Amino acid sequence: MKVSDLGEFGLIERLEELLAAQGSAAFSEHLVVGIGDDAAVWRVDDRAVVATTDTLVAGVHFLLERTAWRDIGWKALAVNVSDVAAMGATPEFALVTLGLSPDTETSAVEDIYRGLADAGEAYGVVIAGGDIVRSPGLFVTVALCGRADLDASGEPIVLRRNAAVAGDLIAVTGSLGGAAAGLRLLRDGDTGSKATQALLARQCRPVARLAAGTAALDAGIRCAIDISDGLLQDLQHICKASRVGAVAWRDKLPIDPALAELFDANEALAMAATGGEDYELLVTGTREQIDTLAEQIDVAVTIIGEVVIDAGCEAKLLDEKGKEIRLKAKGWDHLKGHG
Amino acid sequence: MKVSDLGEFGLIERLEELLAAQGSAAFSEHLVVGIGDDAAVWRVDDRAVVATTDTLVAGVHFLLERTAWRDIGWKALAVNVSDVAAMGATPEFALVTLGLSPDTETSAVEDIYRGLADAGEAYGVVIAGGDIVRSPGLFVTVALCGRADLDASGEPIVLRRNAAVAGDLIAVTGSLGGAAAGLRLLRDGDTGSKATQALLARQCRPVARLAAGTAALDAGIRCAIDISDGLLQDLQHICKASRVGAVAWRDKLPIDPALAELFDANEALAMAATGGEDYELLVTGTREQIDTLAEQIDVAVTIIGEVVIDAGCEAKLLDEKGKEIRLKAKGWDHLKGHG
Repeated sequence: MKVSDLGEFGLIERLEELLAAQGSAAFSEHLVVGIGDDAAVWRVDDRAVVATTDTLVAGVHFLLERTAWRDIGWKALAVNVSDVAAMGATPEFALVTLGLSPDTETSAVEDIYRGLADAGEAYGVVIAGGDIVRSPGLFVTVALCGRADLDASGEPIVLRRNAAVAGDLIAVTGSLGGAAAGLRLLRDGDTGSKATQALLARQCRPVARLAAGTAALDAGIRCAIDISDGLLQDLQHICKASRVGAVAWRDKLPIDPALAELFDANEALAMAATGGEDYELLVTGTREQIDTLAEQIDVAVTIIGEVVIDAGCEAKLLDEKGKEIRLKAKGWDHLKGHG
Repeated sequence: MKVSDLGEFGLIERLEELLAAQGSAAFSEHLVVGIGDDAAVWRVDDRAVVATTDTLVAGVHFLLERTAWRDIGWKALAVNVSDVAAMGATPEFALVTLGLSPDTETSAVEDIYRGLADAGEAYGVVIAGGDIVRSPGLFVTVALCGRADLDASGEPIVLRRNAAVAGDLIAVTGSLGGAAAGLRLLRDGDTGSKATQALLARQCRPVARLAAGTAALDAGIRCAIDISDGLLQDLQHICKASRVGAVAWRDKLPIDPALAELFDANEALAMAATGGEDYELLVTGTREQIDTLAEQIDVAVTIIGEVVIDAGCEAKLLDEKGKEIRLKAKGWDHLKGHG
C-alpha cells in the first residue's frame, strides 16, 4: 500500500498506533499532549514546553518562481506560530532547517532568513539554531518551542482539539478563503488590483492569531485548532478528537471581502470552506466565552456553527434550510492532495 | 554568489551575522547558546532547554536502495541524540518531520518509525509529534529537546565548543573512521566478512555517546563536540569557537580495528581523520579530567592531541616527527562536499 492510499491523516494514525505498541519509551508521564494536536505538550516541574514543527517544500507549499524568498521565511515561521497560538501558548525560540541545492544563490538564503527574522520580531520568537543540508529540492523546516502554564492540579492550561462538547458554538477569527484565492492568483500570475494584492498577502504573509489564542484561554475556552488544511477538514479533526459532530452554516461563513469581490459566490464558498492556509483560529465554547473573546481582541470573531451529537463524528456544511452542501473536497491532504 | 562558493560553515556565519544585525528579537536573555554549537540552550527559571535538529536526505545522507528503512529511522534520531550528548545534556522528546513522495510504501514509513522508536527506547527519548509533507525527495528531520541544569549563578552546566584552553589535552571516545569505511562498503555493495558487518553497522546504526557526555561534565570537562563532519573539521570548529589551535598526533588516533583490517594504512588514516559520521565525542581538558572520564564510562577514551596557542585557529594533524600531514580534505561540508 502506498502512503497516498492511506492519506496523511490515516498514516499519522497508523504511526501513532505503532509508537503506542512499541511501549514504554514512546509515552511518558511528562508527555501530556502527543501526536494528533496542534502541538506537543511536555510537562516539567511547574511549567510545560509546547513544541511543534512545520515544513514548506518548494513546488508543494510555495511556487519558487512566484514567491519572494523573504515571504518564504516569514511563512515558515508564521505557520508554526499559528500552531502554538492554537494551543493558547506563547512561542519562545525556533530551530530552522534549510534543505538547499548547492547552486542556490546566497542572497536567496539571506532573504529567507530576513523573512524568518521579520516573523521572529512580530511574534517574539528567537531563531536559536538549526541545520543546513544539501537537498535535491528546497525546503524549510521550522521547529518551534514555547511555554504554557500549569493549573493548580498540575495540568497544562492549553487549547485542545479534544475539548469540544455538544452544544458548544463554533467561532472563527478574521475571514476565510483569502489564502486559497491568493494561491490561485499567484498561479495565474495576476498582480493587478488592490483586492488581488490583499489576497496575495493572505497567501504569502499569513498572520498567526497569537493574541487570539491566549485571549481564548483567558475567556475560558478550551478547544481550538488553527485553520491550515481548510475549515471543514480542520473542524473534522476537532470532531474526531472530541467524539462529536459539527455543523457550519453557509450563510455565516466570514468570506474574505477581497475574495467575494473577485470570484463568483460558489468559488468563494468553496475556498472559504475548504481552501486552507488562512491560519485563522477556530474555537468552540459557550456564547458568553466567545463574546468575551471577541471583546478582548482586535480581529473579528464570527459564530459559524455548533457542535452536535454525532456518532459518525462528521463536520458538515449546511445551507439556509439545514440541508447538507457537499463540496468536492473537505480540505487538503498532503499525500492524497485535495480530497 | 552560490551557497556552494560560501560553503556550509561560511553560510552559517553569514546568517548568524544577519540575525544579530536584525536586532532585539534575534537575541534574548533566555538564549544562552545560539547558532554555532552542537545545540541551542534556552534558560528558563532554574533549568535550561537544550534543543537541536538534524536532517537526513535520501541520496545525500543515505543511499535509498542500500539502506534499511529501520536504520534510517534509528540514525535520524541517534545523530540528534549525539548533539545533545555533546552538550552533556539529557534528551527528552523529539518531533519528526517526514518528507515523502505519494508513492512511498506505507510499510517503509512504518519501518522508519520502528527505527525511531528503537532509538527512542535506547536513549530514553519520546516521539512527541511531528509533521508529514509531500516532497519530491525523501527526507527525515528530527528536532530534539532535552534539559540541562543551571549552576548556583544561574549558568547552564553544559559542554561548549568555545571552552578549549591552550594546554588542554584532546581526547576522543571509541574509535574513528568506521562509519566512513562503512559508507564505502555500502556503496560497493560489499556485505561479506565480520569486519565488513562491523563497519556497515557504524554507518547505519551509529551510537550516540550519551553517557560519555554527562560523565565528561561530572569529570569537570567543559569543552566537547561530537564527530559528525570528520575529526579534523570538528576539531577546527572547536579551534574557531575557542580562539585556539589544536594538534592531533597521527600515531595516537584510535583507528577502527575493522577499518584497519580491511583498508590500507593511508586510506584508514584519511577515513579516521576526515571521514565523519562516527558520532564519537571529542573533549578537551586536563589529563586528570580525562582520566576521570575514562574511569566512569564503558567505552575507551584516547588522548590524541593537545590544544595550543595559534592566532590562525588551525587544527593540524602531525606525524611522529611533528611535521604536518596535509590530507585532501578536513571533512565534510554539506554545500561544498568534501573540502
